[in-house]
Amino acid sequence: MANIAKKVSWSSRGDDRGERTPLLNGAEDVKYNRQLSAGGLFHIGRLSTVDLEEEITPEEDILRSRLKEIPHNEKLLSLKFESLDYDNSENQLFLEEERRMSHMGFGCLEIRRWVICGLIGFLTGLIACMIDIAVEKLAGYKYSVVKQNIVKFTELGGLSISLILWAVLNSAFVMVGAIAVAFFEPIAAGSGIPQIKCYLNGVKIPRVVRLKTLAIKVFGVICSVAGGLAVGKEGPMIHSGAVVAAGVSQGRSTSLKKDFKIFEYFRRDTEKRDFVSAGAAAGVSAAFGAPVGGVLFSLEEGASFWNQLLTWRIFFASMVSSFTLNFFLSIYHGKPGELSSPGLINFGRFDSDTVQYNLYEIPLFIIMGALGGVLGALFNVINYWLTIFRIRYIHRPCLQVMEAMLVAAVTATVSFAMIYFSNDCQPLGQDNTEEYPLQLFCADGEYNSMATAFFNTPERSVRSLFHNPPGSYNPLTLGVFTLAYFFLAVWTYGLTVSAGVFIPSLLIGAAWGRLFGILLSTITSSQSIWADPGKYALIGAAAQLGGIVRMTLSLTVILVEATGNVTYGFPIMLVLMTAKIVGDYFIEGLYDIHIKLQSVPFLHWDAPPTSHWLTAREVMSSPVTCFNRVDKVGRIVDVLSNTSTNHNGFPVVAHATENDEPGKICGLILRSQLIVLLKHKVFVERASSGLSQRKLQLKDFRDAYPRFPPIQSIHVSQDERECMMDLTEFMNPTPYTVPQETSLPRVFKLFRALGLRHLVVVDNENRVVGLVTRKDLARYHLGKDGLEELQLAQT
Amino acid sequence: MANIAKKVSWSSRGDDRGERTPLLNGAEDVKYNRQLSAGGLFHIGRLSTVDLEEEITPEEDILRSRLKEIPHNEKLLSLKFESLDYDNSENQLFLEEERRMSHMGFGCLEIRRWVICGLIGFLTGLIACMIDIAVEKLAGYKYSVVKQNIVKFTELGGLSISLILWAVLNSAFVMVGAIAVAFFEPIAAGSGIPQIKCYLNGVKIPRVVRLKTLAIKVFGVICSVAGGLAVGKEGPMIHSGAVVAAGVSQGRSTSLKKDFKIFEYFRRDTEKRDFVSAGAAAGVSAAFGAPVGGVLFSLEEGASFWNQLLTWRIFFASMVSSFTLNFFLSIYHGKPGELSSPGLINFGRFDSDTVQYNLYEIPLFIIMGALGGVLGALFNVINYWLTIFRIRYIHRPCLQVMEAMLVAAVTATVSFAMIYFSNDCQPLGQDNTEEYPLQLFCADGEYNSMATAFFNTPERSVRSLFHNPPGSYNPLTLGVFTLAYFFLAVWTYGLTVSAGVFIPSLLIGAAWGRLFGILLSTITSSQSIWADPGKYALIGAAAQLGGIVRMTLSLTVILVEATGNVTYGFPIMLVLMTAKIVGDYFIEGLYDIHIKLQSVPFLHWDAPPTSHWLTAREVMSSPVTCFNRVDKVGRIVDVLSNTSTNHNGFPVVAHATENDEPGKICGLILRSQLIVLLKHKVFVERASSGLSQRKLQLKDFRDAYPRFPPIQSIHVSQDERECMMDLTEFMNPTPYTVPQETSLPRVFKLFRALGLRHLVVVDNENRVVGLVTRKDLARYHLGKDGLEELQLAQT
Repeated sequence: MANIAKKVSWSSRGDDRGERTPLLNGAEDVKYNRQLSAGGLFHIGRLSTVDLEEEITPEEDILRSRLKEIPHNEKLLSLKFESLDYDNSENQLFLEEERRMSHMGFGCLEIRRWVICGLIGFLTGLIACMIDIAVEKLAGYKYSVVKQNIVKFTELGGLSISLILWAVLNSAFVMVGAIAVAFFEPIAAGSGIPQIKCYLNGVKIPRVVRLKTLAIKVFGVICSVAGGLAVGKEGPMIHSGAVVAAGVSQGRSTSLKKDFKIFEYFRRDTEKRDFVSAGAAAGVSAAFGAPVGGVLFSLEEGASFWNQLLTWRIFFASMVSSFTLNFFLSIYHGKPGELSSPGLINFGRFDSDTVQYNLYEIPLFIIMGALGGVLGALFNVINYWLTIFRIRYIHRPCLQVMEAMLVAAVTATVSFAMIYFSNDCQPLGQDNTEEYPLQLFCADGEYNSMATAFFNTPERSVRSLFHNPPGSYNPLTLGVFTLAYFFLAVWTYGLTVSAGVFIPSLLIGAAWGRLFGILLSTITSSQSIWADPGKYALIGAAAQLGGIVRMTLSLTVILVEATGNVTYGFPIMLVLMTAKIVGDYFIEGLYDIHIKLQSVPFLHWDAPPTSHWLTAREVMSSPVTCFNRVDKVGRIVDVLSNTSTNHNGFPVVAHATENDEPGKICGLILRSQLIVLLKHKVFVERASSGLSQRKLQLKDFRDAYPRFPPIQSIHVSQDERECMMDLTEFMNPTPYTVPQETSLPRVFKLFRALGLRHLVVVDNENRVVGLVTRKDLARYHLGKDGLEELQLAQT
Repeated sequence: MANIAKKVSWSSRGDDRGERTPLLNGAEDVKYNRQLSAGGLFHIGRLSTVDLEEEITPEEDILRSRLKEIPHNEKLLSLKFESLDYDNSENQLFLEEERRMSHMGFGCLEIRRWVICGLIGFLTGLIACMIDIAVEKLAGYKYSVVKQNIVKFTELGGLSISLILWAVLNSAFVMVGAIAVAFFEPIAAGSGIPQIKCYLNGVKIPRVVRLKTLAIKVFGVICSVAGGLAVGKEGPMIHSGAVVAAGVSQGRSTSLKKDFKIFEYFRRDTEKRDFVSAGAAAGVSAAFGAPVGGVLFSLEEGASFWNQLLTWRIFFASMVSSFTLNFFLSIYHGKPGELSSPGLINFGRFDSDTVQYNLYEIPLFIIMGALGGVLGALFNVINYWLTIFRIRYIHRPCLQVMEAMLVAAVTATVSFAMIYFSNDCQPLGQDNTEEYPLQLFCADGEYNSMATAFFNTPERSVRSLFHNPPGSYNPLTLGVFTLAYFFLAVWTYGLTVSAGVFIPSLLIGAAWGRLFGILLSTITSSQSIWADPGKYALIGAAAQLGGIVRMTLSLTVILVEATGNVTYGFPIMLVLMTAKIVGDYFIEGLYDIHIKLQSVPFLHWDAPPTSHWLTAREVMSSPVTCFNRVDKVGRIVDVLSNTSTNHNGFPVVAHATENDEPGKICGLILRSQLIVLLKHKVFVERASSGLSQRKLQLKDFRDAYPRFPPIQSIHVSQDERECMMDLTEFMNPTPYTVPQETSLPRVFKLFRALGLRHLVVVDNENRVVGLVTRKDLARYHLGKDGLEELQLAQT
């Protein structure tokens, strides 16, 4: 939060310090909500929460509960999120350090960056490998137990016992995972992609890149996939990669209280965000075997200014990650060195010789894209209402765990019922592509086709739908499966478990895509080109996924890389574009919905096109709290302690006057810098009297990064309050400024391109008249009736 | 050029108007050099030239020849290049227009942009298709004629007649192409990639995106490939795509004097550059069947601020282009709708089932990468000296044509000799993969293996090297071929013909790569994994190409897409990185060498890392010529006519005083805007007396874009000189400014991220103290001994 003093609709004050947990997945805070009365109120706004370590006094609690009553929806913009400082504070300390460094020194730094990226890739690949093996083992164990049971009871009669066994096993796995998430690290819920999107966009999401989050995430995703939920393990990989990156690049772990004293140069937001981009890319790469797709994902979500060297490093991390996964999996599968399964999900080979597409199929693909857009929008709408319901009523961790268990049991039941009532028997092939073929009531040498879809991990089901020969499924099976799985997936996304939405989306799409293909081939007489329903399954999967998440460029590349065949690039792109256009007509993408429900000040790529009539004067916050070059310690402490404003960046002016006359800008200083200065008592008087032991160095700032102590924890005596502080050396003397007349799109472009946190607005005398921060820009967005302004809320 | 008044080492003045032709390929000016005495002088600096339409007076000519004597090399930075205005001039007219536009209006604009991108893709694909068919027809005709002749004379004896026929045919083709290029449009020489790189970087290269250039380019490339030179048709496609984009997006052609009155909104540098990026990407996509590679190429070369929508449009153009080419080629090949050859070059399918790589091969790949780096550096060094030789001695068009013909004849002779003396006979396969198998002295049912490499278009040779079964070539053949082709390719690049260096590089690399593979398989006993020399041919090709051009990310993706198989992504990336690191140790990439030899003020991605000790005060140009808000017409005309400075952007100040006291900044106005104002006589007096017919609109500026008339062509009477001009409405009221203390990296980042042309440096009173333009930033670069400063030269 920065200097704001207007348009803020808060109902109480004094609750604005401590770390926050924006829970993007509808999960709720632990400690606080336990003290709440049952949730009959209109509680959408109660996402604000407190740090687990923080003591809550009764007064504060009352204030908080009053605060929570503010209606909160996607038309608000929360003030509780802080921004990343992507712009270097080029103060004297920084410049001195940079100037001392030789050409060789910069070379070493660059090498270190490459090493870190290599490490990020390696560790991310390793984690992906671990998840894959664990899920395979657990799911394999579960399915073999259930299968034995089913085989036993098929003959005896009394399959309900099998059903109960299956449901109990599923619920047990899910319960363990949900407990870990709900009670220990709620931020680990969901796929983590919305959170990483926000982080790369420049919004600080507390606890999102901590080691503990990673541990819970990995554990949680293994449980939920093994528990048979309609989820995938791919989305969480992206989050995992990001956490790995944030950890490795900083050379220390606060969770483990271990500082390796390496990579200290990289302890600032600028460098950290770059590495997190690499980590996210490595995650995508490991998840889908799509290194280029990973790079493009990071760029689509995070890039502001494109930097070639950075992009190469990101690419390197991606490549290493997919290579590592590939290598270790090849060892696990007993064929060391055969590097042919680069990702967690393997779509199998699409051979371009056999599976061609033709010009006249393109309109069909576009129709499928539109269908995917509609179905995706439906998915999102239902999930949106469900999320609101969850935010209102299902906020206690035990409720959340129970819901997750319920979903797991229902999933098992529905699956079982579908398999039970299906009479689609298919002959068992020679190649045994099915991992767990269920005979059930089929004749010997045949298996239940519905079971290939339900009695399987979702990844395998997708592969079966893509590659099983024509005739493996009958249309009714596919239709029913699509319907059942669609609703299961909608219900599942947003549960308090670690899980991704990619694979269920692909599975739904593959199912109706294959159905589409089969129907086509029955309608048309020529069997040659239409004959392959696998192709339509692929297109359907792309359409459905595109309709739900609305990515285009990176998703095209990811899907192309996952299929290992560039032939389908053009149709996949067309399908994704169509799905996006059609879907956007109804509702936003799933991730954007969840980001909006959290009121995150997310900056899009451009200012709304019709915002040229707004100028910096209108969007800026004013008046601005400024400091003098040399200011009194007491005043600084008071300003920092003022929780009603809780500013984060302060322009430093030549002669700040007490009255309203603004001073001429000569720098910008951050709250975090002031805190370090106060902590080290860098006062003019102490320096002149030789009291201060040594000159403050950049290292002192880096050591405190990223968790600067709150101002309350710093004791300043009454005598010290009368001292003076000289900010000249520590402030950024050349902050970016814009004149008041600058149009909003121009301000936006500067802000976005350089990843700024504060942009000072000056008049033509260079006097500070306002400050533009993220929320001032994120506030304006394009609604149905033109430009809309979101309200700011202190939630 | 902008406001510069320091550090400029020119020897004469007054030659600084009119359009220039920076000939990046060592080609020289036509008219001027004909009047020069024979070139015994040190003439490297004489690349400056004049517009063909421009009349040259004798006095000017003398001035010019004196000017030419300035030694000119890569340590100079030319002042003759202008920059693109990527930053919108947000003056009142612009804002009024934008504010008038409704939400729907912006939607229409966006749709128009998509339509244009689709058109760009379509036309680029069509051109690629045309080139491909023309080359195939012509080369087929040539080879069949020569083959018949050889067959005839093999029996009769007297093969020298065949040689002469071949050499004459080659020279004839090349002559036609070289004449077109040398006499009609020298900018069409070479691959055009350095020029497009410069354009995307923000440097205006005159005539580079004109229709005439496109026509000559297409014609030239057909001639040179059909003429059997060691060249490819892929590089020129990138240039062609860019020209198509510039033409289509402007909705008019100045060459054809035709204005379609559409797309007028896009008539400014900002929009045009975006479309040119799309065109370049479409070109890459058509050349290599690599749509994603095309997007990444454009981004690597051109992106400053990453814009998502723009990237999607670029991707769309790429996809459409490769699809169009694919579609029309499928019709041409008689299999309409079989969309399996998406690019001009088709590497053939690499089947990942048969061609695997293993972990222990990776060190081998890295060794090959290093070898590629060394060989690439050797290529570049030789070509560098050759280019300097060409600039000095081969500048007359007829000499250039003769050189090209000589190279063509030598190529034919060398090829013939190699085929003649080779006794590597291979049995003719059943599948007839060879297009023109030459039996020569081989037994019946066998063919000469050397001929598959030489008696073929280079594209086919590459494919043969990748895919012919093991044992198709003997090592001696490959070794001799590599050596011969290497020197032919070095000699060929830089000739005054339209041609690319991609394919020859790939061919050289594929040859020694295959040789490497064969040697490996003879050394090792296990035949299984080493057995496929095609894999090593691919790696070698990547290494050689990487060693020459030094692209990494986009090239990896291009090669992966061209092979149609993602399995090789990781080794190709490793190889390209190694080749780049090794090659960079010796000399820069080929394109960068040619850009540097032209002294283009090319901005790299970052400021040199050790430049933190420089501030805006040191890098800026000062004093700056400023205008008042309301200034005298006479003064404006005088300033604009001052050819010694030839400024392009002028800060507008509140009260410019005649003495050195600088005024407070209130805007920035461009030369082009002032010219339009003068042309329309927008004077205060005329407005008040009701003389001016109508208010000036943005349309007037757009109509004049991009070739604004020179100031000399505008007649201003003595009375009018006394009038006043009010610039308030037309200037950009919110130019970006930085304080004097800003460090160079910070200035650089702002400049590069926003694609600026002028950046005003102000003091703390907001008074103009200097102006930073492209050359001020491009001047500093990292040499062997730390930071170096290039000299500015008025060449």
